[in-house]
Amino acid sequence: MKTVSLHDITELVGGTLAGCESDATQLSICGVNTLACADGKEISFLANKRYRDVLATTEAAAVLIAEDEPNPSQVCAIRVKDPYLAFAMLQRLFHPEKVASGYRHLSAVIDSSAVLAADVDVAANAVIGEQVTIGQGSRVGAGCIIGDRVSIGKRCLLHAKSVVADDCVLGNEVYLQSGAVVGSDGFGYAWSGERHLKIPQSGRVILEDDVEIGANTCIDRGAIGDTVIERGVKLDNQIQVAHNVRIGAYTVMASQVGVSGSTIIGKGCQFGGQVGLAGHLNIGDGVKLAAQTGVMTDLDPGGTYAGSPAMPHRLFFKVSALLLKLPEIWKAQRSR
Amino acid sequence: MKTVSLHDITELVGGTLAGCESDATQLSICGVNTLACADGKEISFLANKRYRDVLATTEAAAVLIAEDEPNPSQVCAIRVKDPYLAFAMLQRLFHPEKVASGYRHLSAVIDSSAVLAADVDVAANAVIGEQVTIGQGSRVGAGCIIGDRVSIGKRCLLHAKSVVADDCVLGNEVYLQSGAVVGSDGFGYAWSGERHLKIPQSGRVILEDDVEIGANTCIDRGAIGDTVIERGVKLDNQIQVAHNVRIGAYTVMASQVGVSGSTIIGKGCQFGGQVGLAGHLNIGDGVKLAAQTGVMTDLDPGGTYAGSPAMPHRLFFKVSALLLKLPEIWKAQRSR
Amino acid sequence: MKTVSLHDITELVGGTLAGCESDATQLSICGVNTLACADGKEISFLANKRYRDVLATTEAAAVLIAEDEPNPSQVCAIRVKDPYLAFAMLQRLFHPEKVASGYRHLSAVIDSSAVLAADVDVAANAVIGEQVTIGQGSRVGAGCIIGDRVSIGKRCLLHAKSVVADDCVLGNEVYLQSGAVVGSDGFGYAWSGERHLKIPQSGRVILEDDVEIGANTCIDRGAIGDTVIERGVKLDNQIQVAHNVRIGAYTVMASQVGVSGSTIIGKGCQFGGQVGLAGHLNIGDGVKLAAQTGVMTDLDPGGTYAGSPAMPHRLFFKVSALLLKLPEIWKAQRSR
Repeated sequence: MKTVSLHDITELVGGTLAGCESDATQLSICGVNTLACADGKEISFLANKRYRDVLATTEAAAVLIAEDEPNPSQVCAIRVKDPYLAFAMLQRLFHPEKVASGYRHLSAVIDSSAVLAADVDVAANAVIGEQVTIGQGSRVGAGCIIGDRVSIGKRCLLHAKSVVADDCVLGNEVYLQSGAVVGSDGFGYAWSGERHLKIPQSGRVILEDDVEIGANTCIDRGAIGDTVIERGVKLDNQIQVAHNVRIGAYTVMASQVGVSGSTIIGKGCQFGGQVGLAGHLNIGDGVKLAAQTGVMTDLDPGGTYAGSPAMPHRLFFKVSALLLKLPEIWKAQRSR
Repeated sequence: MKTVSLHDITELVGGTLAGCESDATQLSICGVNTLACADGKEISFLANKRYRDVLATTEAAAVLIAEDEPNPSQVCAIRVKDPYLAFAMLQRLFHPEKVASGYRHLSAVIDSSAVLAADVDVAANAVIGEQVTIGQGSRVGAGCIIGDRVSIGKRCLLHAKSVVADDCVLGNEVYLQSGAVVGSDGFGYAWSGERHLKIPQSGRVILEDDVEIGANTCIDRGAIGDTVIERGVKLDNQIQVAHNVRIGAYTVMASQVGVSGSTIIGKGCQFGGQVGLAGHLNIGDGVKLAAQTGVMTDLDPGGTYAGSPAMPHRLFFKVSALLLKLPEIWKAQRSR
Repeated sequence: MKTVSLHDITELVGGTLAGCESDATQLSICGVNTLACADGKEISFLANKRYRDVLATTEAAAVLIAEDEPNPSQVCAIRVKDPYLAFAMLQRLFHPEKVASGYRHLSAVIDSSAVLAADVDVAANAVIGEQVTIGQGSRVGAGCIIGDRVSIGKRCLLHAKSVVADDCVLGNEVYLQSGAVVGSDGFGYAWSGERHLKIPQSGRVILEDDVEIGANTCIDRGAIGDTVIERGVKLDNQIQVAHNVRIGAYTVMASQVGVSGSTIIGKGCQFGGQVGLAGHLNIGDGVKLAAQTGVMTDLDPGGTYAGSPAMPHRLFFKVSALLLKLPEIWKAQRSR
């Protein structure tokens, strides 16, 4: 198990020690843990104020705290600008990604026309189609299916049983969680007078660099033209992204969001879980949507919305509170 | 790449040319594209009025327009009854389905008791169980799992990693998108006084002809008796259909809809995304539900509903507008 | 086909016969069916009062009815305390689980360091990683992927294409439906100033005894510490359980529920479909949530809630009814 001195940790996170014993800097730290569970060889962090009470009883060797936080009396503290970011850095230090080593399981089916960098890993029962290219340092999990002519960049990680359909493109450092489907057909039919005639979905899915796609999330290929997920976007589990959607850089969505076809979402947006968006909308940069919001109209940049249909979130909370008074409103009006 | 003359295209879609140069009919067309992206060898279409502005600047060789649309001044037009249907026909012309050729990947596991038509394709790592039958022209994608005694009709397409559990029945021209699960156990337990006792789900799933099931959509098998998806039904991604549901012919559902057990849905219904229906309901033919509608009661044929609990959609939009006035209503009442 | 005498069935379910012909006890029963579909060799049951009308016309050999139900005039009845539980017992009698027999398909990939009990079944194309242990009587379906160091107890059933990621722990009699993902990464990032920095998710998922996980449901592993699903919990399809959630014993959730990170749910709760819960909440024992409820606050034990944001369900139904009167309220107030 990796150990790092508290001194080195403090340097790594760019913090300053406060309230620690004089020899604390030489302490060997073995990992990161929560305030409640950390032991004397682990470091912890206070990022969510609701856990501040636990500071008094934590057994952690040291605690990452914000610069404006008072000194905890009973534990050595490392003051940092952003304790959550510092936690993330330490968690990455103690749990580094595996490095690709060029391992190819005998049961993997790799088409002879596929071009894989020498160090690409391919686990058991994965299937890699014709003319696929996979860049340095990427790893393909067990049972993944990669269709024909797919392009996958460097240092990507495809967890077990993710699917990338024909012709789709993944940039560098793209992560797919298990069961993710990239490139399913969009939901397109024309009524023929007798039946719903399927419209071939001839576009692709493009996942730019640093994108992560959650477990069992589906990204439909474009009908004509592509579905595009821009750089740094993070999508949680069980999200549905329909054909020809574009999601702007660094936008994050919690699980079970549904985005209908051809909707364009700006950069740096944040959507809560179970949000739904109608099709052909334009959602501005930096829009925030509370969980379960239903969006049927374009939204200007920077707003925060809630409710279904969506309204400004302050209004939503006011309306929600008044809903509880509807019986009173009704009664008062009747009594006049 | 396939090319087709504008003359032949016009015949195929049953249209008439308007405003075109005299020699336009001999133009070679290579594909279909959006108004914004089409080049001089592609045809485009105007099906959604919100894109009408783009007509003036499109570089398409010709544009499919509705019969009641004014002649565009700068581009050759093909007048048709239904531009979207004509687009679908052309997209099918330029992107025909692959034809099954009897290809069987060496890594596929096909039980010796399975009976597959000679031209059925089975891709890498697919698994086909005992006594399965698969009809002419069907294709089984990589990593698909087909349980025992499953019957699959003609010209079906099972995309990579779809699952059909034991005893389920697929008609002709059934499409399964990746990750679809047909025949998972229904959610049935009886409380024993100590634990939830699992009720074996002994029914099947029947998918009639011309059904399409979206990516990661689940259709539970019946508890006793079958779950039935009638002819021509189209289900988008991540839909949940519980045990013993019946969905009437040609009904379409957008993604993330949930249908609870034993609910019967009529023919020709249209459900938006994230709709939820309680169990044991009867939903009439032709019912339309807006996205995120929550249905707790039977619904008569032909109605359009929205909201949770569901109400007639006109009322929903009126109520939604008045919700925004609740603060005003409250204030006015207080001030008396 | 198994047959059991009506006498033995009556004993098994602890019931008493009423209104039957004298020789009825020797009748051979071949199975259980609905009132509408049962024939003269099948037994049926009345558990949902809305089907009581069908008693008069059922052709079943006998019907399980509650002790307080009047005697049906035309069919032999078995009186029991809980007809639904009796139905479950009979369905289990006629459809017993397959027994594991130590079958290992040649195409399964089982790491040499894995330790499987002798009778464990492993179906085609399943993958079992390093140092996995699997207990007696468990069965691993086709195409399942089991990561490294996973521990699986006795008599578990993993349906085709379920995934258990590295280090996760399954107790005894755990069932996974197809496409279930146990141990996907939680959705954790820290903003670095330039991008969302992924936080390695170093915890596990623990599924205690007698847990069932539905098709395409995802259980994220803990960020640090574990995600825990306690004994006897039943989760339907397409549910999302985020990192570090704990779900109390015997809680049941219908499909498409989403539970955000670090939320603690009590024992014996019942959630309807499409419910959403925010993160870091405490939900008391025995809480019931109607379908589509949205929960943003802690909830005391034993309450029943509905709506989004959640409110007591009686209030919700009152408010929902008054919503329909908002146009009237508005009009009355304007007219003053």
